[in-house]
Amino acid sequence: MKFAKIPMATINRLSIYMRTLQEMLEDDVDVISSERLAKQCGVNPAQIRKDLAYFGEFGVRGVGYRVNDLVVQIKDILGLNRPWNLAMIGVGNLGSALLRHGNFIKHGYIFTAAFDVDPKKVGKRLPNGVIVNHVDELEEKIKEKEVLMGLITTPASEAQNIANQLVLAGINGILNFAPVQIQVPDCCHVENVDFTIKLDSIAYHLSASS
Amino acid sequence: MKFAKIPMATINRLSIYMRTLQEMLEDDVDVISSERLAKQCGVNPAQIRKDLAYFGEFGVRGVGYRVNDLVVQIKDILGLNRPWNLAMIGVGNLGSALLRHGNFIKHGYIFTAAFDVDPKKVGKRLPNGVIVNHVDELEEKIKEKEVLMGLITTPASEAQNIANQLVLAGINGILNFAPVQIQVPDCCHVENVDFTIKLDSIAYHLSASS
Repeated sequence: MKFAKIPMATINRLSIYMRTLQEMLEDDVDVISSERLAKQCGVNPAQIRKDLAYFGEFGVRGVGYRVNDLVVQIKDILGLNRPWNLAMIGVGNLGSALLRHGNFIKHGYIFTAAFDVDPKKVGKRLPNGVIVNHVDELEEKIKEKEVLMGLITTPASEAQNIANQLVLAGINGILNFAPVQIQVPDCCHVENVDFTIKLDSIAYHLSASS
Repeated sequence: MKFAKIPMATINRLSIYMRTLQEMLEDDVDVISSERLAKQCGVNPAQIRKDLAYFGEFGVRGVGYRVNDLVVQIKDILGLNRPWNLAMIGVGNLGSALLRHGNFIKHGYIFTAAFDVDPKKVGKRLPNGVIVNHVDELEEKIKEKEVLMGLITTPASEAQNIANQLVLAGINGILNFAPVQIQVPDCCHVENVDFTIKLDSIAYHLSASS
């Protein structure tokens, strides 16, 4: 599905709306007003209506949104009406913790491959049944395991090299945890996770209010 | 230092500019144009000039920015001209990995306390010398260890309870890794880290371009 010029902030908020709506489904909520959904998500109701308006007509005037329908529609917009296979590159402390984290599979992300260069790790079977391969086998295993996104948790010095190999193996989506900006061709989409940037934002707020 | 109405996106970009400038300092770069800084940070030069304009006059026309001065000034804006003590609540796989992650101390964030409820973890000394305390001692140890920010890596079901305790202990900054929205009073600033929201954004791009 293609939509023109959707701001990234809108895409990120759709994920948050969807997670909140999924929790409501578990609590057997059928219909929700934009006011209540907004409150739960920490945004204002006009923002929700504006975000959803990019994608067409949602909700029933005077009633609200049908929770299940909206979940299905947001999944369709985001491309989440299917599972996504992931590879973890770097099975150190952080990589191992993420491989064990239940939040990925809950949202349809499945680790089907993992890579490292450490001989003590290569060949090991992870709790999810995946066997750690050597980075030298990256291209072959990425194809074999039908991986579509790569997560990089290597040291910063290795991240660009790994990104290059992922792109060569046909991967167009990378989530980079290494504290370095990686360069990729336009066909590849990179998202960065740097926890300390979030802490900077907290530091700013604490300093500004003191 | 107080500035009116700075967009959060600007604050986040300042962190990225600062990290890039710090890398340049390590490479002995003294002066940089907004064009080159922009390219390194993956934004456009007008954006950098606009972001910095919120905080006054920076740079020398026709010359660029003095790298060291700009780092000092951004640190001053963000409140990073001082160290910040952190507490980790939840010493499971993810908490342990983060406690060992070198990126925190590099940016002036120091773990001085850690908490869990698991008797096998309480009393254990971490590689950084910090001893894991029981959550029951949270308020006392937070004060003793001069903690200013709390990181929550507990299961989702415990996160709100921990957030309440942190606020009662005087903490006004929380980085929440638990996959749940936590509610806090206005005096407290919460940032959330949910890796799967970043993956949703990648899924959207891969689906939209296919």
